[in-house]
Parts: sequence; C-alpha cells; structure tokens
Amino acid sequence: MQVLRCESTQMSDRVMMRCISCRDEYGTRDAGTCKECYEEASETEEELKREIEELKAKVAFLRFWSPLDHQHSRSSPSHSFTDVVLVASDDGFGGPVAPVPVPAHKAVLVSRSPVFKAMLENEMEESRSGTIKISDITYDALRSFVNYLYTAEACLDEQLACELLVLAEKYQVKHLKSYCEKFMVSKLNWDNSVMSFAFAHQHNAKHLLDAALSLITDNMDKLTKRDEYIELVEKDPRLVVEIYEAYLSKQVNTAAHKDSNMKP
Amino acid sequence: MQVLRCESTQMSDRVMMRCISCRDEYGTRDAGTCKECYEEASETEEELKREIEELKAKVAFLRFWSPLDHQHSRSSPSHSFTDVVLVASDDGFGGPVAPVPVPAHKAVLVSRSPVFKAMLENEMEESRSGTIKISDITYDALRSFVNYLYTAEACLDEQLACELLVLAEKYQVKHLKSYCEKFMVSKLNWDNSVMSFAFAHQHNAKHLLDAALSLITDNMDKLTKRDEYIELVEKDPRLVVEIYEAYLSKQVNTAAHKDSNMKP
Repeated sequence: MQVLRCESTQMSDRVMMRCISCRDEYGTRDAGTCKECYEEASETEEELKREIEELKAKVAFLRFWSPLDHQHSRSSPSHSFTDVVLVASDDGFGGPVAPVPVPAHKAVLVSRSPVFKAMLENEMEESRSGTIKISDITYDALRSFVNYLYTAEACLDEQLACELLVLAEKYQVKHLKSYCEKFMVSKLNWDNSVMSFAFAHQHNAKHLLDAALSLITDNMDKLTKRDEYIELVEKDPRLVVEIYEAYLSKQVNTAAHKDSNMKP
Repeated sequence: MQVLRCESTQMSDRVMMRCISCRDEYGTRDAGTCKECYEEASETEEELKREIEELKAKVAFLRFWSPLDHQHSRSSPSHSFTDVVLVASDDGFGGPVAPVPVPAHKAVLVSRSPVFKAMLENEMEESRSGTIKISDITYDALRSFVNYLYTAEACLDEQLACELLVLAEKYQVKHLKSYCEKFMVSKLNWDNSVMSFAFAHQHNAKHLLDAALSLITDNMDKLTKRDEYIELVEKDPRLVVEIYEAYLSKQVNTAAHKDSNMKP
C-alpha cells in the first residue's frame, strides 16, 4: 500500500502541461505562467508594438528632409529656404580650395542646440554674416552633424562617432552625444579601452567612461604591459590614478559582498 | 488495485503549478507557458519598452518649438527666423479688425505638406508675398494646424478634430489626418454616426467612414426614424444608398458564414 502511494506521488510529479507558446510539454519545475497571465502579457506586447508603430510614424513625420538631401534633388538650392551656412574652417587648410559650405536653417540650428541659439539670437558675428565657422572638424563630419540635426540619424563608424561626439559636446546636442556614446560603448574592447577611457574623460562622456573603466579594472593584470598605459602615465597620470582608485573600490566592494554572503 | 490507480489519476489531475507572474496556483486547464517561454516574453517586453523610450527621446529631439510658443516667450519675434505668415482669411469677415497672422517657416511647411511645397517652391503669389491665405477656417484651428506641423501634437475636441481633418485633407498632411480620424473614431456613437458618415464621405476619411458605416448597419432598425437620416435622403440620397448596400452585403456575408458553419 505504501509502495503504491509512493507510485502515485511519482505519477503526479510527472504530470505535464502543454505550453501555449512553444507547444512543448513541461513539468512542475519548468512552470511559467497561468493562462490568464499569458494572455495579459500577449496583450501588453501587442499594445507596445502598436505604440512603437505610432512613434515611428511620428518620427517619420517630424524628421526633416535635410538641406543636404535637397542639394542633390532636382529642385534648385534656393528652394530649400536656407538662411545660414556652416563651414569646416580647417577644411581648406593652407590649400587654394575654399571650404565647401553646408547650408542650413537658423530655425533648425536654434531649436536643436542651445549654443547655436545663443549665437544666432544675440546678433553675434555669425548671425550677421550668415556663416558659422566650425574649427578642427572635417567636412564629412560637419555634413553628418548638420544632417543629424535634421533627421536624428547618422551612419557611424568609430572615427565619425568620435568626431560627432566632440561636436555634440561643443554645441550641447545631448541626443547626438548619447547616440555616439552608445555606439562607442558597443565597439568597446580591450584594445581600445584605454584610449576610450581617456577620450571619454576629455569629453565628459560618463556612459562611455564607466563602461571603459569597468573593462579595464576587470583586466588589471594585463594593464601595465600596454603601450597605451605607459603613454597615459607619461601624459596624464591623474587618469591612471583614477583607474587604480576604481580598481581598489571594486575590490573593496567585492570583498564586502563576499563577506555579507558568508554571514550565517 | 484498480481503485487505487483511479485515485492516483485523480491526484495527478489535481496537481497544481505556481504561476511565476501572479503567484497563484493553476491546474492543467489553465496552463499558460513554460518557464523558458515566460522568460523570453519578459525579455521581449523589456526590449520593446527600451525601444519606446528611445523613440520618445527621438520625437522630443525632432519636435520643433513652434513659432507660436515663441511668440509668447521672452525672445523677440524676429528671433524665430520665420519667413512666412498664414492668415485665416475669413477671420476678420466684414469687421474692421485685420486677421491675426500666424508666423511660420517656409522650410517647415514645405517639409510637412506637398501642397505647401508646390505653392512655395513654384514662385506663386504666396511665395512672393510671404502670406498664405487659408479660407473657411477659424483662427484657433489655423493656430492648431501650424502647431501640429511643428510638434505632431494637438489638443483635440470634436469640433477642432473636424476642422483640422479638413485642413489636413486640403494640404495633404497625412499624419494629421489619421490623427484626427483616430480621435473621431474614438468619439463615434449612435447620435453622431450619420453625421460622421457623411463627413467622412465628404473628406475622404476611409477609416472613419468604415467605423461609422459599421455602427449604422448594426442598428438599421432604428435608422429610418432619425432626423439626420431624413435630412440625408433629402440632401444626398446616394450616401443613403451606400448605407443600404453595406447593410445588404453584411447580411449576405453573415448568412454565408452561418451556412459554412452549419455544414458537416
């Protein structure tokens, strides 16, 4: 009798349910949700997807054609109603060729950047002349920068991301700065970690700084052999101190965590 | 022995699992998903929410301050760099007061509406004078219309939704048209259904038309007593024919559906 009871318990343990989603059978240990919660979650997912579609349509509506697209379209440039040009001021550096101006609308620049706003609304030189000179930047980066102000889109590579982050910091275009940072974090690896850390420090990119610092302090044993490390000690030892401080604080935290886990 | 087996089967039927989401117990009949599918779905939900946050930030970036906000801000109107005004041409109708012009940027109008684009790029009267007259519209509707072109937002009531839909149709601003239609569908009821149907017909609002027609054909028995119906027969009998055709087609479909369900 006892044996039989035991059998029946075993049977009940083996009872399987069928998953609505993957259609596989599952037992008690792999239980997920009840039907009601599953249906609720499915509805939520549908709602979120609808919201995404609506937001995408809104972005498509609000997204400006860029005056750069316009340059290549059939309509004449005068039809883009631009009232200012931006010039990469070191583009024609020493050469006989004048830098190519990038046309734009004051209204767009002013709405995207508080720096352009102050510049253009306060009757400064740039507002009077209708020309904004931007130094230390390539023509391609300037084009991408202006294009981003109209479209919130850029086709980044690592070099362009650096250049645009610098511009975004300078003209306080937060959305672009975080866009570039996200890209650079996604490209972060051991080889570029020290350079990225120094770059992030210089340009006040907190998100990138934290990610680089975390990668570096996870590999401290390999750090001191690196050329970039030796160079950084030479050029900016305070940054190296920051790395060691972060490492130390991580060790202390890990120890405290272990300690609290070992307590009964 | 047989009885015992039976008992054990009953037991296994009564085996309960605990839902990860609501923490209630559930049996075989209420089975939702397995743990793996639940975890996958939760991840998907998190991803969708992140995407929504990103899109919202993009909308906030692309959203223009409207020149209307600007009018009320501390900065002088000349700082909004507007280059065109819109005027509700029947606003000062017969009165001594000139209509209040709504300032805007040609670049914004052109990017949001193919009609404005054709008007302003082709050196028409409006482009030369810098004034666009818009007839049969109140000043408030015009303000909301221009504001929408900058922000993709409007605070609608039923009257404003009608006026904006008419403007959106006239200037081919699809995003606004569908925004108004959605609002009007949400406000659709038996009392306004015939009017909404006629309005949707006149302004080519397919989504609203279908919704109104469906509501009307669901209540055909009450239709012919309505004043709006009698008026519509008088004014535009072809629309009434359309209602009857939709009703007939619905009946035929329902019959065919019942028929196919009754087949063995």
